[in-house]
Amino acid sequence: MTFLDKLARAQQANRSFLCIGLDIVVANTPLPLQLEDEPMLPFARAIIEATQDLVCAYKPNLGFYLAEGAAGMVALERIVRLIPDHIPIILDGKFGDIGNTAEAYARGAFEQFRADAVTLSPYMGGDAIGPFLKYADRGVFVLARTSNPNAGEFQNLKIRSAAEERLLHEEVAIAASRWRAQGPAACGLVVGATAPAELRRIREIAPDLPFLIPGVGAQGGDLEAAVRYGHTREGVGPVINVSRAVIYASRTAAFAEDARRAAQALVDTMRAISPMR
Amino acid sequence: MTFLDKLARAQQANRSFLCIGLDIVVANTPLPLQLEDEPMLPFARAIIEATQDLVCAYKPNLGFYLAEGAAGMVALERIVRLIPDHIPIILDGKFGDIGNTAEAYARGAFEQFRADAVTLSPYMGGDAIGPFLKYADRGVFVLARTSNPNAGEFQNLKIRSAAEERLLHEEVAIAASRWRAQGPAACGLVVGATAPAELRRIREIAPDLPFLIPGVGAQGGDLEAAVRYGHTREGVGPVINVSRAVIYASRTAAFAEDARRAAQALVDTMRAISPMR
Repeated sequence: MTFLDKLARAQQANRSFLCIGLDIVVANTPLPLQLEDEPMLPFARAIIEATQDLVCAYKPNLGFYLAEGAAGMVALERIVRLIPDHIPIILDGKFGDIGNTAEAYARGAFEQFRADAVTLSPYMGGDAIGPFLKYADRGVFVLARTSNPNAGEFQNLKIRSAAEERLLHEEVAIAASRWRAQGPAACGLVVGATAPAELRRIREIAPDLPFLIPGVGAQGGDLEAAVRYGHTREGVGPVINVSRAVIYASRTAAFAEDARRAAQALVDTMRAISPMR
Repeated sequence: MTFLDKLARAQQANRSFLCIGLDIVVANTPLPLQLEDEPMLPFARAIIEATQDLVCAYKPNLGFYLAEGAAGMVALERIVRLIPDHIPIILDGKFGDIGNTAEAYARGAFEQFRADAVTLSPYMGGDAIGPFLKYADRGVFVLARTSNPNAGEFQNLKIRSAAEERLLHEEVAIAASRWRAQGPAACGLVVGATAPAELRRIREIAPDLPFLIPGVGAQGGDLEAAVRYGHTREGVGPVINVSRAVIYASRTAAFAEDARRAAQALVDTMRAISPMR
């Protein structure tokens, strides 16, 4: 099954565009868990068990596991094995390196850490993307317009060579449309919900590219724009990521139920904007 | 001691600008080592023991360790502990993520994996760089013009807003000069030896930024340009990285001596171009 088929099935089965970011900071986990030798695993297990019927994907961000050293990476390897087989895993590493290194990252992400898809940085150009595209049943989301406050510093620079006025992240979206055609892996874009005007414009430029949309939740992005402009022309729904606003909904002993409640509220809002069959 | 002090001492003590990239691919290690349960560690130990008086830094690239899963990350955690204290470690992860994730990456790289410096991708803007700059005794090298064949695809796009004609990677070099002033960590640039004209131009634009220069060796970059334009105005020497051409100089039982011979030849060439006191 391709990544996009797996994603579509999870979206339909759970009637959800919600992706939960498993961005675990040990110091932010509920105090009872911090008494354990390795709090990341039981925390992730509780969140996954409480929310797996409400999501279309889980997205662990590599940085939070690397922060705990090799022990964190052992936890990540175990956490991805707790995610049900029918829910896609997006490993958010924002990888971008020369060809033989990109091959190594692809092997690590897709074969060792069981990712169905990864995030990639476009700065180094197409040969940093190519090795990931060789995996027919996987996907990549290339950073176009990210959700952080300084995202526009380079991404919104105007490019001189283009016939019409065009911004750097628009150039990336156009390149990603070529990479999608190259395949066989699925190729989509990361487009932040914090910049709804750009989100809408990128959808015009790249009607066929699936969107991974961060920035809803703690970052204050526009959930309505994310749902409205998130769909591809062929109807692939958006992957709308929320991390902190769900997994740290509370730090009490009831943190997992509280995370579920936060996830349910987001899914209800998404369904109100775009009713799913 | 700051990162730049540590780097300068290593450059002077070993009369070398050579950085060896510890980019270990298990399948490329000598056959006797592949019989071991965990070949990365003994391979790295042999290379480090054979070359530590010839280098100014070692640079493990995260991708090659991630390729082996959590076991590879355990190996990396052990390998960085084999590097003598007076030789800087540059963890090449090309990290670039939003603020709270960047903090996690910085903690992982600097505190868990003992890196003296890291490589960073500029695509997400200054708030993806800031958390790394808070470490007073560490350094960052921001990707400007990389060494891979498609490096120019985005990095050499012309920017419309600049008064004079300027390329994206030149905008990055100018931003990095601001980030250097922000500190307290050292801020330098990654500039590939495969594009000597850009290397020279970036040195003009950013006279004070230390350069990490990949692309010499297997990628065929210009070692002479790397040495000539690699120095800052204040005399910080370049960090010229070679990976495959040194660590896989041979795959025989004498691989470590052969790696030393390859490293020595590179160092001799560098000294011929720029005699070090």
